[in-house]
Amino acid sequence: MEKIDHIGIAVKSIEDSLPYYIDTLGLKLLHIEDVPSEKVRVAFIDSGNVHLELLQPIDETSTIHSYIEKKGEGIHHIAFGVTSIQQRLDELKEKGVRLIQETPKAGAHGAQVAFIHPKASRGVLYELVDKTGGEK
Amino acid sequence: MEKIDHIGIAVKSIEDSLPYYIDTLGLKLLHIEDVPSEKVRVAFIDSGNVHLELLQPIDETSTIHSYIEKKGEGIHHIAFGVTSIQQRLDELKEKGVRLIQETPKAGAHGAQVAFIHPKASRGVLYELVDKTGGEK
Repeated sequence: MEKIDHIGIAVKSIEDSLPYYIDTLGLKLLHIEDVPSEKVRVAFIDSGNVHLELLQPIDETSTIHSYIEKKGEGIHHIAFGVTSIQQRLDELKEKGVRLIQETPKAGAHGAQVAFIHPKASRGVLYELVDKTGGEK
Repeated sequence: MEKIDHIGIAVKSIEDSLPYYIDTLGLKLLHIEDVPSEKVRVAFIDSGNVHLELLQPIDETSTIHSYIEKKGEGIHHIAFGVTSIQQRLDELKEKGVRLIQETPKAGAHGAQVAFIHPKASRGVLYELVDKTGGEK
């Protein structure tokens, strides 16, 4: 795990949430992007060293929609930036760590991503994100 | 908000949680410290650019104990590193942001800390931490 890449925050509405981050906290909006594979719209916010990603469900089949229904809006996951994501996933699997994806899937910006099951991490949802092949 | 200083993670037991972070994820334990003002024991973990702080309640009056009782173990808060913390709190108050502490209190390493009320941040608990006066 090289470093924290971003923190994902589940929100009902990016439009309603953004003014707090930008006007009140004084952070900078980088851009907004739809990530169809996750059924979310994502607002990327620069907080100096780590991005905050506001995750808004695109429809009711989004896991972020279910998350908000169950737990309310709030911090959803922490993403570690890695290289050689498949190798890292294989290593974790060998160590007996339960994974949500054993092979990476497409994330934002053409990155490869996979999630560790929160039961492996005592309630914390960790994502691995490998940007080495992407960043179009 | 200069940058993310750390992410606080509520755990029942640092002893039980540490092997996952150190042996499995390969992160580095910096040190373990009791923070009596928060009634927590804290394990500081280096994750490259941001610390992860594992927060274990010292007793049942700890807010972390109540948090775990209510929501289970998991991500508890995100801390922004700031300077001039009292000025930042005054600015937020002027903007109508609900604060848990309007004047900072003592955190780990002699830092000054204060929390924004999660209702102001749509379910996310943000902490401000000012280390400019501390780091003994």
